[in-house]
Amino acid sequence: METISENRCFDGVQGVYRHASNTCNCDMTFGLFLPEEAKYARVPVLWYLSGLTCTHENAMTKAAAQVWAAEHGIALVFPDTSPRGDDVADDQGYDLGQGAGFYVNATEAPWSPHYQMYDYITSELTDWIGENFSVDMDRQGITGHSMGGHGALTIAMNEAGRFASVSAFAPICHPTASDWGRKQLVAYLGKDEAAWAKHDATLLMKERGFDGPILIDTGVDDQFGDLLGTEHLAAAIATRRQNAQLRLQSGYDHSYFFVSTFIEDHIAFHAQALYA
Amino acid sequence: METISENRCFDGVQGVYRHASNTCNCDMTFGLFLPEEAKYARVPVLWYLSGLTCTHENAMTKAAAQVWAAEHGIALVFPDTSPRGDDVADDQGYDLGQGAGFYVNATEAPWSPHYQMYDYITSELTDWIGENFSVDMDRQGITGHSMGGHGALTIAMNEAGRFASVSAFAPICHPTASDWGRKQLVAYLGKDEAAWAKHDATLLMKERGFDGPILIDTGVDDQFGDLLGTEHLAAAIATRRQNAQLRLQSGYDHSYFFVSTFIEDHIAFHAQALYA
Repeated sequence: METISENRCFDGVQGVYRHASNTCNCDMTFGLFLPEEAKYARVPVLWYLSGLTCTHENAMTKAAAQVWAAEHGIALVFPDTSPRGDDVADDQGYDLGQGAGFYVNATEAPWSPHYQMYDYITSELTDWIGENFSVDMDRQGITGHSMGGHGALTIAMNEAGRFASVSAFAPICHPTASDWGRKQLVAYLGKDEAAWAKHDATLLMKERGFDGPILIDTGVDDQFGDLLGTEHLAAAIATRRQNAQLRLQSGYDHSYFFVSTFIEDHIAFHAQALYA
Repeated sequence: METISENRCFDGVQGVYRHASNTCNCDMTFGLFLPEEAKYARVPVLWYLSGLTCTHENAMTKAAAQVWAAEHGIALVFPDTSPRGDDVADDQGYDLGQGAGFYVNATEAPWSPHYQMYDYITSELTDWIGENFSVDMDRQGITGHSMGGHGALTIAMNEAGRFASVSAFAPICHPTASDWGRKQLVAYLGKDEAAWAKHDATLLMKERGFDGPILIDTGVDDQFGDLLGTEHLAAAIATRRQNAQLRLQSGYDHSYFFVSTFIEDHIAFHAQALYA
């Protein structure tokens, strides 16, 4: 593992690290914020999965998350959103290929050799961080923004029992019925839509739900609102009577200004579950 | 004036605007955060002057300042650090020319036609914002980072009576005796060092001081510590018995992770003076 940078931040450390990933078959970079408490004991951890075009860096620098993570003594993991490198397949669109892994394990050419983001996040990076840092992998929460909100919700529901809580900012809620989803799912997983179902939060909510609390914030003025499919997940949550808060926030859009406004609430929400 | 973007943020608005500057003889872009209170009454304002290589955008997205400005009902102005454009003189170094205006009025070729950042900030942009936004220019504070900390301190001391309070993050404290200063001052102002004195916080502190409180944070592990000359300003503050807090923060470096850690304190410090 290579340390790219470590900066003191709110009495903790904001680090950036690179490691050789066997799962993605390339080097992967991630950000990790460790609060001061991690010097003395393993701390609970909140995953932050980022959206289209992002690297590990965007949320780490723009979400204003560390202030609240430090207050609650929680580590933050900022993974990349895809495999990277000259040898890694890519697409000219911003919404496919590098920067747009969609948190699935690709089965189709040319993506399958590297695009294994589901396993990378849930298995390899989880193990890596648990083994190398003062983080307690028995106390995990997960959140994310846009494509990363999709990732957080689908991973939390698929990995039953692992996450105490899940939240999301402007998540893609029903990708199997959206232009933010169908293009990527057919590319990565092929035309058989049966393989897509475990990567659709609305379908997972109908089928199984989540055994913990959910918090979702989405801006009323989100410029990508039609692509998110929030109404489908809202209906599925209400039908299931899932423990969840879905908040439509007047005037807010899809930007990090929106994320930074509500991340205090999200981290407090996860802290309540992680310290329960 | 052109609105580049407006994003709702902490119940206020983070805007980016472009206007034709007569002072800098080019279009200038700035960020302005208006808290919710600005909808109902003019609000006090805190200037944030940025450091070398920055535009209006860096602090606006990375300093985590809006959360505290919203809490205290204070506007934040994020000016650019220099004139910009293909017609504007530049230098290949990161520390001279575009991105490195040093908050002076250049008198020397090729800089003088555009590099009038002192007047731009203290006169034209002040008037522009006062006329176009719900900001109370009778209640101003000023802060900045690195080169911008230099700007904040020198502007506050030169414009006696204007600012209720001044603070700085890792400011360049004694540019007339630093490689972060001499190169730029000779380029912009010429070889006569008498013209440099009003742009050196240490010399201004010896000569006149500031008629309000000062707060300065600088990291003990600042990688540019030798260039800042903090010890010179510290001595001048103590000699004058200036109302000031100078805090050397263990483990912190020169980054925005450092700024974001302490900006809560700085905004609370300014709020106390602005609402006094």
